[in-house]
Amino acid sequence: MTFRAPVRDIAFALQTVGHPALLERAFPELDADTVAAVLEAAGQFADSELAPLNRRGDLEGAKYANGAVTAAPGFADAYKAFAAGGWNSLSADPEFGGQGLSKALELSVFEMTHAANMAFGLCPMLTQAAIEALALHGTERQKRLVLPKLVSGEWTGAMCLTEPQAGSDLAALTTMARPDGEGGYTLHGQKIFITWGDHDATDNIVHLVIARTPDAPPGVKGISLFLTSKYLLDDEGRIGARNDFRPGSIEHKLGIHGSPTCVMLYEGAKAELVGEIGQGLAHMFVMMNAARLQVGVQGVAIAERAFQQALAFSQERRQGRAVWSGDYPAAIYDHPDVRRMLMLMKAKIEAARAICLTTGVLADLARLADTEQERAAAKARQELLTPIAKAWSTDVGVEVASMGVQVHGGMGFIEETGAAQHYRDARIAPIYEGTNGIQANDLVGRKVGMGQGAVMRELCAEILLTAQTLTEVPDLAIVGKRLAQGAAALEHATDWVLAHGGPDALSAAGPYLKLAGDVIGGWMLGRQALAAGGSDDPWLQGKAALARLYSGQVLSLAPGLAEGLKDGAADLEAMTPAALAG
Amino acid sequence: MTFRAPVRDIAFALQTVGHPALLERAFPELDADTVAAVLEAAGQFADSELAPLNRRGDLEGAKYANGAVTAAPGFADAYKAFAAGGWNSLSADPEFGGQGLSKALELSVFEMTHAANMAFGLCPMLTQAAIEALALHGTERQKRLVLPKLVSGEWTGAMCLTEPQAGSDLAALTTMARPDGEGGYTLHGQKIFITWGDHDATDNIVHLVIARTPDAPPGVKGISLFLTSKYLLDDEGRIGARNDFRPGSIEHKLGIHGSPTCVMLYEGAKAELVGEIGQGLAHMFVMMNAARLQVGVQGVAIAERAFQQALAFSQERRQGRAVWSGDYPAAIYDHPDVRRMLMLMKAKIEAARAICLTTGVLADLARLADTEQERAAAKARQELLTPIAKAWSTDVGVEVASMGVQVHGGMGFIEETGAAQHYRDARIAPIYEGTNGIQANDLVGRKVGMGQGAVMRELCAEILLTAQTLTEVPDLAIVGKRLAQGAAALEHATDWVLAHGGPDALSAAGPYLKLAGDVIGGWMLGRQALAAGGSDDPWLQGKAALARLYSGQVLSLAPGLAEGLKDGAADLEAMTPAALAG
Repeated sequence: MTFRAPVRDIAFALQTVGHPALLERAFPELDADTVAAVLEAAGQFADSELAPLNRRGDLEGAKYANGAVTAAPGFADAYKAFAAGGWNSLSADPEFGGQGLSKALELSVFEMTHAANMAFGLCPMLTQAAIEALALHGTERQKRLVLPKLVSGEWTGAMCLTEPQAGSDLAALTTMARPDGEGGYTLHGQKIFITWGDHDATDNIVHLVIARTPDAPPGVKGISLFLTSKYLLDDEGRIGARNDFRPGSIEHKLGIHGSPTCVMLYEGAKAELVGEIGQGLAHMFVMMNAARLQVGVQGVAIAERAFQQALAFSQERRQGRAVWSGDYPAAIYDHPDVRRMLMLMKAKIEAARAICLTTGVLADLARLADTEQERAAAKARQELLTPIAKAWSTDVGVEVASMGVQVHGGMGFIEETGAAQHYRDARIAPIYEGTNGIQANDLVGRKVGMGQGAVMRELCAEILLTAQTLTEVPDLAIVGKRLAQGAAALEHATDWVLAHGGPDALSAAGPYLKLAGDVIGGWMLGRQALAAGGSDDPWLQGKAALARLYSGQVLSLAPGLAEGLKDGAADLEAMTPAALAG
Repeated sequence: MTFRAPVRDIAFALQTVGHPALLERAFPELDADTVAAVLEAAGQFADSELAPLNRRGDLEGAKYANGAVTAAPGFADAYKAFAAGGWNSLSADPEFGGQGLSKALELSVFEMTHAANMAFGLCPMLTQAAIEALALHGTERQKRLVLPKLVSGEWTGAMCLTEPQAGSDLAALTTMARPDGEGGYTLHGQKIFITWGDHDATDNIVHLVIARTPDAPPGVKGISLFLTSKYLLDDEGRIGARNDFRPGSIEHKLGIHGSPTCVMLYEGAKAELVGEIGQGLAHMFVMMNAARLQVGVQGVAIAERAFQQALAFSQERRQGRAVWSGDYPAAIYDHPDVRRMLMLMKAKIEAARAICLTTGVLADLARLADTEQERAAAKARQELLTPIAKAWSTDVGVEVASMGVQVHGGMGFIEETGAAQHYRDARIAPIYEGTNGIQANDLVGRKVGMGQGAVMRELCAEILLTAQTLTEVPDLAIVGKRLAQGAAALEHATDWVLAHGGPDALSAAGPYLKLAGDVIGGWMLGRQALAAGGSDDPWLQGKAALARLYSGQVLSLAPGLAEGLKDGAADLEAMTPAALAG
């Protein structure tokens, strides 16, 4: 099974989400040819270096023995090649060796990386999170010693948050950071679920660890952020003796076997404070939007991988008679139900990709737009879209991977085929970086309320404008009609959430997020269909068909979703486990 | 993690789908106490003997070596105990050692078996299919020699249909049955995906194999059904020398590792014709309804297993502050989004269970109702509901197992927790015994058209009557309103399918089946809520809340589903692989 990075799709998606305008305003030195060249080269690297390792990474996985983790076969060399190719540093500050490109372009490259090999992609993804944390909150010395190594990929980074009793609720963490009397700290405690927490792919690994200080208040106010390094660093950043932390084991997981998920034991490891005492969670939250968006991109990526495999299989596998042509035996692609699945998979992938890339462009604009007002507006919409990009896209990842298995029929259940791996790998994305339930709570509890609902209402108004344009194009009128109904439903549900709040809104959070994603996804597809209009390229012409299919299968459900989410809170509150149990 | 067979839920479901009336009419010797005793005892066997083997079966699986399969650890002894307990023979004819109980009760016992251990349950399930095939089409000698052994469980049966090039399209099969000149045949060819095709749990295994005869016409008319036995039988049914077929390997699968999925090689195996030459597929189709319904029950079963585990975890795991009570740390059961997932899981399980048991009761009535007219009506509705029971329930199985992982958060992705196994096991059920796409095609291509649509229209009319009753009960009025809209939407979509037919209807098949299942599922929950009405048992009171939640989250989408399924056929027909590919 050959994977081919979806360079054309991504390039088209970037065009339709305002990336060219972003480049004009904020990246004058980055022209369209350079963007195309970056995407082409990243796609080639993903196809030739990362995709071939994916199956072996699943079969053999990372290994733990004698207090150390060995990366899956080929992964260490691939990481060195990835770093040498400069793929680790696309959006990083040139001051520290980065290339200063747009976040949206970097996300696009990450999508191809995750699609080729999701377990591998987590290593640079977590390294990038560490880069962002240090760039924002590190001391000058920390930046000088550590950032260039992370940006170059000589070292990797890990984010160390979860503890056995503290997952979604980080306030419950107990890892301690004790002052060492010399201005530093020593870390004591155990972290779990630490992605790429240990490995043999690079000479050193730095951990960003949240922990309590001895005299800290309880709860989130008592949590600070610390930097620790697998090997101690001298004042020039050279590595010395081993520090006092080590992996205790790695998890035996459903998927992403090539990504070592470590239990980490901190046994007096020397560490430095990052940022301010008591601000650990706040510092983490600054990165959270970026990491959540990255995970949304993973959902797109694994869906793309599963889709490509299913599409290829559907053309090779022959069974039965084609209903349209009468051919026998027909490629199963020629059976309407199979083709419907494939088109729906593709439509949802395009919708999710465009949502994620839109959020990426907003992240760039939030930093780089000309005026404070524009930056604030971009930031607000970025924050609104981030939980949707994360949760909706990762749900799409699971759904599309499951449909990919289904298209394969019995062969999909056989591990050798590879479809099953995508189904297993995809399942983590709705869980980590804040479960999709947490995303939904964030959306209704914080984001929708921004500006008394103005941020979401403005979005709905823009969607309605696009719907109006669509209704004026004969072959997209049905999309326009359903998109308008969807936007009205979303607006209505938004009013309801804002009017109720509290437990009522939280009870509706999951369906509300789904509604928002469904409608915004339809908006994205409608815009793509408009952008493709008039072309006689069959691939561009297909965008209208995808938008229509999505409008019938997804958008048409929006009014019902909006209606249904309004009741239920009282029943949820009253339901006891005993009444639910058999 | 302790599994407890859902005896109370199943008993309640049986009551609400007309099982008591069936017993009065057709099983006068089977009273309510006996039914309760059978369910209790089956539940106890499932809990104590089968559930404890489930995880080990997953980890160690069945093994193939040196031309033979060894069952997963403990499975052989468990099968002997299962047979010794009489669980293999509940609905079989007493003439051959069966107990002559209702199919609906037998299905209920199978649900508990599959929930405890789905990989195990496949062995008696396939044996039962062989029993039905022989009972209907076997010669007197075949029945005398083989049926008692299968009914007692001394031997097991396997159904041998699929070949590498012939999966959904059995017409393409090439296995040959050559006359041996003595009235028998020898089999030559290869079958794949043969569930429990070989194992060491019993002394003998009989295979029902579809194959071509040398002078047969091409296509389905050339296919006949044959009986072959792992060991040759003398005229008393005693086993002798080994016959010439053997397993070539077993598959490495995503799930159900405890169920050996065999490649079977027939190398001149002696075999006997079953039924008539050229009627092999027709003979198989008679059993197909039963087997498809059984797989639907597997969907219910794996969902129940996943639900129980998620519910237990949600009460143990503490994270964050409870939004209603303010407790800290709260059981995650007290977070609205988690509780909504659990209630939706439970509602869908109850809906799917009731659909399957309704279909089981109809299967009994189709054989045993008093008049020919009643039997014909039951058979028609049984045939209508079978593809819905199979496809909708197995989709529920996957969906609920996925939500079960999600409720667990990060722990759900760790294999040791067990939630991941259910997610893997559940994935086969939408595929085997006819993919869910095949079920949808069967529904719109054959079943909806029965009586020019009268069978489905009568069902819709009954649903509308229930909806009317519901609207008159204050706390169920919203369910009644949405159920009426759902039934109207189903009727409308049915008219559309009947008016269009052909490729248009096949293009809408998947969404149409989903719509039908969603609405009929809501009907089942509405009836359960009515049946539970007035009780002050909290568990029974909970039925109304489940029906309401389902009405908001599922039924309210029915009008949109019905609207959306009507277009798309032209876009499906026009879409080329090149336009879909990146």
